Amino acid sequence: MIGIFDSGIGGLTVARALMDHLPGYDIVYFGDTARTPYGSKSSKTVIDYSMEDSEFLIQQGAKIIVMACNSASSVATECITRRFDVPIFEVITPAVEMAAHFKKEQRIGVIGTRATINSGIYERKIKEMDPDAKVYSIACPLLVPLVEEGWLKKPETRMIVKKYLYPLKVRQVTSLILGCTHYPLLKTIIQRKIGKRVNIIDSSLAISGKVKAYLDGHPDLDKVLNKSGMFRLFVSDITEQFEKTARYILKKSVRLEQGGI
Amino acid sequence: MIGIFDSGIGGLTVARALMDHLPGYDIVYFGDTARTPYGSKSSKTVIDYSMEDSEFLIQQGAKIIVMACNSASSVATECITRRFDVPIFEVITPAVEMAAHFKKEQRIGVIGTRATINSGIYERKIKEMDPDAKVYSIACPLLVPLVEEGWLKKPETRMIVKKYLYPLKVRQVTSLILGCTHYPLLKTIIQRKIGKRVNIIDSSLAISGKVKAYLDGHPDLDKVLNKSGMFRLFVSDITEQFEKTARYILKKSVRLEQGGI
Repeated sequence: MIGIFDSGIGGLTVARALMDHLPGYDIVYFGDTARTPYGSKSSKTVIDYSMEDSEFLIQQGAKIIVMACNSASSVATECITRRFDVPIFEVITPAVEMAAHFKKEQRIGVIGTRATINSGIYERKIKEMDPDAKVYSIACPLLVPLVEEGWLKKPETRMIVKKYLYPLKVRQVTSLILGCTHYPLLKTIIQRKIGKRVNIIDSSLAISGKVKAYLDGHPDLDKVLNKSGMFRLFVSDITEQFEKTARYILKKSVRLEQGGI
Repeated sequence: MIGIFDSGIGGLTVARALMDHLPGYDIVYFGDTARTPYGSKSSKTVIDYSMEDSEFLIQQGAKIIVMACNSASSVATECITRRFDVPIFEVITPAVEMAAHFKKEQRIGVIGTRATINSGIYERKIKEMDPDAKVYSIACPLLVPLVEEGWLKKPETRMIVKKYLYPLKVRQVTSLILGCTHYPLLKTIIQRKIGKRVNIIDSSLAISGKVKAYLDGHPDLDKVLNKSGMFRLFVSDITEQFEKTARYILKKSVRLEQGGI
């Protein structure tokens, strides 16, 4: 099956996009809710946790691992790819490719957690693909707790989004990468605050397209993936709030299983 | 020495208050920054973590443990008291005693994390001490991330505090317990939004008074506590943001040591 992990709930936006792109494929998800969030922690800690998360998914029978967490993708991809023998997908590159695709000499904004932005990975990858692009990055650490609280449409959330995006608006970005899998849930507010002409790049859509293309090109791997429509949702800590937000994201009822660390 | 633990940074308000009440006493602090916050996690997970935190402090030579975390105090006090042979102090009771002290038939508001409020512990303890008191509790999960980001005086923070406190203001509470060690850092805003006549009970002050009184009554224990003015600050994950906020709370430069889990 396809394994997905995230620090918590945000990666479910990737799970949902994968279900749309690859209907029927068996998926096992692990959310490390006992240690969430990753985005404010050090690289070393995020790498250690990501290794354990991947190990757990492999034990569950994952033949592909999707790191549905930008903080983990930013700092742990190399270690995980070296350690495990299955294809590893991270969320950064697909979003950057999608952004670079629009046009030349563009001004790309990136928003993410502190861990992701401090790693500088989006900037490096964008410059590799389009050396003329101007990149402006902003860490938005309060957006994750706002999403996890379900404050998706509150005026306070709109004010905070506006405040974070202001420096990007002033620089008239042409594209904006949502560099955190929680942010697609705030897409409407973000689009309104940054301006309707700005291309919003949703990394959950970008990565699921990438996984589908990979499987199309690797029929041997595709053959061994079960397609019974099973979805298992493991978390390291079961809370009512997680269940509520999970139901909201997946638009169906979910059964949480205790697992992982 | 005196051991203090918290899920992260909030307990430093207790450390600071202890330094004021018991100047010169050696203190070892542990902030579980690799797994912070506790307040949105399940009781089982908070108990497991609190046991490990206490174990670590004992290994460092703590002769007293102060649980400077309301979420831990709410759910883990019994387990920790049963397991360890040193005096254990939790932050709930001292704050409740302080609130009950004011007058009879009062209306007490309590704000805290979701774990603390869901445990119902403040309500139970207040009713034990003052059966006529009316208690109104509100979970304010976004205040911890706002404090950890250092957004102590921003208009967005003022709006969010106002929104959380509104139901308590309507009920005309006479006292308000700050049931989370992060909240003293927002005391000015909280006082302004709830009204200047409301008694604000700061649990960090309440508990440090309690520890001092205990040591006055137990000279044998007091004698074995070193008083060289040493302060060791361990965290399970070292980040720049923690260092910055720690400096702000303690009003002096700090040296973080990696430790714990």
